Amino acid sequence: MTTMTKAGLEDVVATTSAITEIDGVAGRLSYRGYNTDDLVGLTFEEVCYLLWHDELPDPTRLRALRTQIGEERRLPAGIADLLRRLPATAHPLAVLRTVVSALGAIDPDGEDGSPAANLRKSVRLTAQAPLIVGAWHRLRTGQEPVPPVASDSISGSLLRAILGATPAPDAERAMDAALILHADHELNASTFAARVAAATETDLHAAITAACAVLKGPKHGGANEDVFVMLEEIGAPDAAEEWVKRKLAWRESLPPAERQQIKARFSGFGHRVYKVDDPRAAHLRRMAAALAERDPRTANWLAIAERVRTVVAQEKGLKVNVDFYSALVYQSMGIPADLNTSIFAVARMAGWTAHALEQYADNRLIRPRAEYVGKRGRTVHRS
Amino acid sequence: MTTMTKAGLEDVVATTSAITEIDGVAGRLSYRGYNTDDLVGLTFEEVCYLLWHDELPDPTRLRALRTQIGEERRLPAGIADLLRRLPATAHPLAVLRTVVSALGAIDPDGEDGSPAANLRKSVRLTAQAPLIVGAWHRLRTGQEPVPPVASDSISGSLLRAILGATPAPDAERAMDAALILHADHELNASTFAARVAAATETDLHAAITAACAVLKGPKHGGANEDVFVMLEEIGAPDAAEEWVKRKLAWRESLPPAERQQIKARFSGFGHRVYKVDDPRAAHLRRMAAALAERDPRTANWLAIAERVRTVVAQEKGLKVNVDFYSALVYQSMGIPADLNTSIFAVARMAGWTAHALEQYADNRLIRPRAEYVGKRGRTVHRS
Repeated sequence: MTTMTKAGLEDVVATTSAITEIDGVAGRLSYRGYNTDDLVGLTFEEVCYLLWHDELPDPTRLRALRTQIGEERRLPAGIADLLRRLPATAHPLAVLRTVVSALGAIDPDGEDGSPAANLRKSVRLTAQAPLIVGAWHRLRTGQEPVPPVASDSISGSLLRAILGATPAPDAERAMDAALILHADHELNASTFAARVAAATETDLHAAITAACAVLKGPKHGGANEDVFVMLEEIGAPDAAEEWVKRKLAWRESLPPAERQQIKARFSGFGHRVYKVDDPRAAHLRRMAAALAERDPRTANWLAIAERVRTVVAQEKGLKVNVDFYSALVYQSMGIPADLNTSIFAVARMAGWTAHALEQYADNRLIRPRAEYVGKRGRTVHRS
Repeated sequence: MTTMTKAGLEDVVATTSAITEIDGVAGRLSYRGYNTDDLVGLTFEEVCYLLWHDELPDPTRLRALRTQIGEERRLPAGIADLLRRLPATAHPLAVLRTVVSALGAIDPDGEDGSPAANLRKSVRLTAQAPLIVGAWHRLRTGQEPVPPVASDSISGSLLRAILGATPAPDAERAMDAALILHADHELNASTFAARVAAATETDLHAAITAACAVLKGPKHGGANEDVFVMLEEIGAPDAAEEWVKRKLAWRESLPPAERQQIKARFSGFGHRVYKVDDPRAAHLRRMAAALAERDPRTANWLAIAERVRTVVAQEKGLKVNVDFYSALVYQSMGIPADLNTSIFAVARMAGWTAHALEQYADNRLIRPRAEYVGKRGRTVHRS
């Protein structure tokens, strides 16, 4: 057994992968060798194809994929029943993981784990995820789900499913960019869980259920729900500096052990891998600025965000991450903050499935060891 | 970034833990410092308490735990509806993970992640798991689930839920021993997934949903469904040697790459950690032998198993693992082979929850890296 690695497997290479490359020092993120700066502006469908097939699709292949996604864009009747029976207070990610798991139990490809079946399951889940998110949101707010439209893009279907209306073209383009930027991020915790699952040769839905379960955590995808809560709490740009300093002073007043726990808890700041600004944040900031030009509320949130970013950078040297501006972008589209992690999941479905396919194709069980630090040599005293 | 570890994180220490110690060379398995050889003979409830609290319970605490488990031994009405709507062909583990996930969405403790709430959730899931397994089995075979009995032991409730009758005391004792032997096994893939989930601070049900998703895989818990299939296929002790040799000859005829894949595929043989006989197998073999004395069918299966064990050891030097005799023990109790992984999950619920509680108590996000081996420097050619 090797010696103990850094806690949390930090900097430990757990596998090789040909999907995503992060340069945390240069602040560069590439999918399949394409810089994401270059991919933003494409459609999400093209990036899904790239992640699954290691090539961008030519027009014929793109049309075929869009047709296939359109055909798969429906939820079985039993799923609608299941959604109606869950309480409106249920966490949207708890609902998503339950539905993804149930879809696995009724998938038309069943337990077929062949590469062709797993690719079909990947397309199907990517087509269905926006409907699950939207149908749940509408049901929990007392509205009926809207029927899906086969010709929608994935972004369009997501906006339609949540908002209940045909989306504006600029909102659809902004959502495309947001989904592309969230589509994959190497061995983040949820993707790693998907690979741990796939490595046991469990079914693809099981791997994606595990990923949904993990994404929900506030130290992972769950973090982006809190950014907007923070912006609302601050309320106005001029209040940002005092808010940040008060939070830091409160943290300083804690005992050292608790203080350590709170360290990373400026929502939208800091990342295990990036030592510089998260390259995704620059795109999302530009999108937020464009939206702010036409919407005074977004302009106010953005102004607060910019002050928070400056003060946190000055005081703590922390860099913003992908969650910081995405919260603002989704809010500006009319999406409630507690669906942010669900949007993240819709995007990451592409990355999770690509990683599971890669794991299945060249597999070894992922089974590390624990270093035992407990008691030894105890005996049972039977009376 | 450190250099690449062995594939599958083999021998990499991912965390410290004070729960379970495996000595793979001596063939020794201990929970909380007690050798499992010494724990077999206790009740499963006592071992659950030990895993959760690092102490065996005194009679008062054991009574309190049994009372609490009895009170939690019921499935909400919505869960029964959900089970009735799943197709009878669904995999029992796909059903279990869906129901555990749904239970998280409706748990009375909700999103409360305090240590006290997480302990209540652990007890609740451990009490409910036998009912899920049994209710599903009865519904898929056209029988009605039987009402739970608060005074049952966990083993008794599991046998009652599956078989629909008050279990014989000796079957209950044998099930207790089987559950104790399967209760935990350090960082096996499903437990590791539970810790990856808990490390994002997602809810306990999410962590256990991820674990159920991972256990299903044939390279993990799913393996024990295949042992009995093998014994039935062989049919008689005298046919075992030829069967094993024919399988080996077939494997030799494969191209080297495929051959490598098939290597570990004598179901019930080989283990990543044990270099000697799995210490759990000795107990399960003794239990199988006791059952065989009263049941000629079990005696025949055991005789086949013993021949397979001898021949595989001679030909390949492989050692039996926990799955080899457990399949036989469950079959002898009248439990169909495709529920074996579900029984495993009922037992492992104790270990999964104990590991999640340990991870929550001293947490760091588990987020390794991938070594990028794909293409680089590609550019999008926009038409």
